[in-house]
Amino acid sequence: MPIKGPIKVTVWGENRHEQREEEVRRRYPDGMHGAIAAGLTEHLGSRVRVRTAVLDDPEHGLSDKELAETDVLTWWGHMAHEDVADEVVERVRSRVLGGMGLLVLHSGHYSKLFRSLMGTTCSLNWRDAGERELVWTVAPGHPIAEGVPRPIVIGEHETYGEPFGVPEPDELVFISSFGGGEAFRSGCCYRRGLGRIFYFSPGDQNYPVYHHPDVRRVLANAVLWAAPPAGVGEPLDNAHTPVRW
Amino acid sequence: MPIKGPIKVTVWGENRHEQREEEVRRRYPDGMHGAIAAGLTEHLGSRVRVRTAVLDDPEHGLSDKELAETDVLTWWGHMAHEDVADEVVERVRSRVLGGMGLLVLHSGHYSKLFRSLMGTTCSLNWRDAGERELVWTVAPGHPIAEGVPRPIVIGEHETYGEPFGVPEPDELVFISSFGGGEAFRSGCCYRRGLGRIFYFSPGDQNYPVYHHPDVRRVLANAVLWAAPPAGVGEPLDNAHTPVRW
Amino acid sequence: MPIKGPIKVTVWGENRHEQREEEVRRRYPDGMHGAIAAGLTEHLGSRVRVRTAVLDDPEHGLSDKELAETDVLTWWGHMAHEDVADEVVERVRSRVLGGMGLLVLHSGHYSKLFRSLMGTTCSLNWRDAGERELVWTVAPGHPIAEGVPRPIVIGEHETYGEPFGVPEPDELVFISSFGGGEAFRSGCCYRRGLGRIFYFSPGDQNYPVYHHPDVRRVLANAVLWAAPPAGVGEPLDNAHTPVRW
Amino acid sequence: MPIKGPIKVTVWGENRHEQREEEVRRRYPDGMHGAIAAGLTEHLGSRVRVRTAVLDDPEHGLSDKELAETDVLTWWGHMAHEDVADEVVERVRSRVLGGMGLLVLHSGHYSKLFRSLMGTTCSLNWRDAGERELVWTVAPGHPIAEGVPRPIVIGEHETYGEPFGVPEPDELVFISSFGGGEAFRSGCCYRRGLGRIFYFSPGDQNYPVYHHPDVRRVLANAVLWAAPPAGVGEPLDNAHTPVRW
Repeated sequence: MPIKGPIKVTVWGENRHEQREEEVRRRYPDGMHGAIAAGLTEHLGSRVRVRTAVLDDPEHGLSDKELAETDVLTWWGHMAHEDVADEVVERVRSRVLGGMGLLVLHSGHYSKLFRSLMGTTCSLNWRDAGERELVWTVAPGHPIAEGVPRPIVIGEHETYGEPFGVPEPDELVFISSFGGGEAFRSGCCYRRGLGRIFYFSPGDQNYPVYHHPDVRRVLANAVLWAAPPAGVGEPLDNAHTPVRW
Repeated sequence: MPIKGPIKVTVWGENRHEQREEEVRRRYPDGMHGAIAAGLTEHLGSRVRVRTAVLDDPEHGLSDKELAETDVLTWWGHMAHEDVADEVVERVRSRVLGGMGLLVLHSGHYSKLFRSLMGTTCSLNWRDAGERELVWTVAPGHPIAEGVPRPIVIGEHETYGEPFGVPEPDELVFISSFGGGEAFRSGCCYRRGLGRIFYFSPGDQNYPVYHHPDVRRVLANAVLWAAPPAGVGEPLDNAHTPVRW
Repeated sequence: MPIKGPIKVTVWGENRHEQREEEVRRRYPDGMHGAIAAGLTEHLGSRVRVRTAVLDDPEHGLSDKELAETDVLTWWGHMAHEDVADEVVERVRSRVLGGMGLLVLHSGHYSKLFRSLMGTTCSLNWRDAGERELVWTVAPGHPIAEGVPRPIVIGEHETYGEPFGVPEPDELVFISSFGGGEAFRSGCCYRRGLGRIFYFSPGDQNYPVYHHPDVRRVLANAVLWAAPPAGVGEPLDNAHTPVRW
Repeated sequence: MPIKGPIKVTVWGENRHEQREEEVRRRYPDGMHGAIAAGLTEHLGSRVRVRTAVLDDPEHGLSDKELAETDVLTWWGHMAHEDVADEVVERVRSRVLGGMGLLVLHSGHYSKLFRSLMGTTCSLNWRDAGERELVWTVAPGHPIAEGVPRPIVIGEHETYGEPFGVPEPDELVFISSFGGGEAFRSGCCYRRGLGRIFYFSPGDQNYPVYHHPDVRRVLANAVLWAAPPAGVGEPLDNAHTPVRW
């Protein structure tokens, strides 16, 4: 049973690099969140209704009311992970467990949110040398890989390397190689509670990755994949109440 | 490369039911932790060196020094999950990610420790009606199932039911049925960081489950399985330092 | 991208018990395949176009042409597994790997087709004692479990028991308990090549299981889940040609 | 319970390139199987007892008697997959399902044996351009990765590329990058029946990969990992007999 009406997406951005670094602002005049949102609308049109929210919004733009209107949340953060309120992290986490889809992007691997959902360090190796990244599909039947070239060629990007400190993905969709020789599990699916989580590593602030048509295609596919079939659910928390899920 | 010398096991018990309820004390005169420890020694002899620790010990008996001397930790808690200090939970968690084996027992599913490692609610359904539990092996080649009867018959036990709010196990070893008709994933393996985690559901304080020879056999097998091949490692935390694992 | 138009389903039945045993014929006047087909149409209406095919049809009703018109195939067989031509098995297998969805039902676990796709014995324990089967959802967020009661109650059924000689499922959706105490992984998902496979154990010829509304619901959900997003693809065989998938 | 006495390893080689191509013979004067066997003995000494067998041996050196004396089998084949008798393939397969460990090497991905155990095409992309391969550990806690440098550097090798047509590994241990940009899942673990299977892609006949100390280390680790804890078991076939595993 597909969701009635458009999928409601909240694109969340830390929006600090954009504020502080002119070069990032020039690359992303509407913020990185703006570019991500534009890419989703470009690919999905009336199938989605996209809003953006940023760290500096009241409650980071992630109030109970706003989350109750979100089928899928995308998360980009980097320099200000610690500024995200624990209470909001827990609120979002319980929503994911209750069915809200979540896309964790690039340096979002180190967000409180992703770490609390994975339970592991979520650490990785990295090096910024503007190397070419090639993103290879390992699961050709997976909906997130639909229509995606093999490989996606990202001319210049930050390099991520293994070991990536996450649980073994429930489904591995992409692995990347980098000009300097690294290899990395760049597209990882997780099922947690009633929710679906997709981690996708391309997307550093110093490169125009979110303007890349193939990256946009992946994100659009991932929104469709992560959307809860029955629409927005209730949050699932650890309260010791009878289990209703 | 097997561990040199005996595997160092810390059997951790909440030890509250034993203090407060005469019936539990009669069932477990040395505490539930005492019975678990005795079972391990009974099966593994000189292959292990077992100590016990309880909630009321200084630092819950889980100081840095004590953890640095622990290859495998077993965890039983129920009524006092909230009394376990967050700092200790985080300390233990980083040890598991660094390679320490962990056995989470019965109501320990709702411990802060297990929930923080799983990232999910870890909730389940339950009913205490003294029903028969049958524990069936689904992974006959798994070392934890070695020498275990099919099924293990536990005459009377608390009933656990699905859905069990955990990530899909990396390996499912046992599923149980109960007299009242429930079915439950009773033996679940997880790999997290460098560590191995085994959840095993039999073990309620109101039943003499830890005197059961087959349950003891499972726990002994699980200690061997969870022991880190290279011995005690360093804790792995989320600090933003270069990745050395 | 959903399939354009209705999902094309072929319900395949061995149709031997129905021919030879009056009692089965009385239970399933249109054959077991007829009941399965009726259940799919009942739940999915115009979203599917269902045909049936049986062992005694030319090429078992599974010619290249017929398979090229099949998005999802359901498979029930029992007493005549060996009568299925190897050539047809291989033809169907290459279609599954090329993207065709497959539902393997009950005793179909021992079909040449399922065994060749799994690579294992696919053996299990069984006993026919007309016991109650309860089917419990372990993956509440899975689309196959949508709208399914917890548990499904099947008043009388053949008993299946572990160990079930299959690879660990990519997703486990259901586990069952039986009146006699057995527990069994009754709903298992696999991804193989571009195709999706769902094994569902309820469905013995001696019980009216395919008239059960909840069982019908599961099968209808599974058809939606298994349907290839991009519609019918080409078969994938082991020929040593360049890889085009 | 570790195996009593040394682990009995059979290193199986097709041994056709060595016979027909002088250059391969010069690279591997004792055959590729000879080099693999030497590497295992070098690392494991008295912990293993290694024999070799080749395609041209009677019954390919894989008679019932010989398999009954084999804890772990390694398999390298390439140009003569079709010359391996179906009967022997089935015999070996039933041994793996009965508990014998199996290491499938490089072009062995296309062997009848591996394909029949996986159930999929096992196809991949490839190109021989003498490129550098880097083998990265993604599962640092896995025993097969113990003591292995990150990355293993193989100066020149054949290039393998995704998509690799196998079931999702039960554990992914290594991924490789190649000089030309490809990325590949180069170390994959499977559990099938009572047996453990490890696929490792480095090892082309045109490069001296089996003289590489790190590759030898991986193979030695994998033999220890794949060895059945309880020693050689009985074959498990598809015969419709009561299930005894």
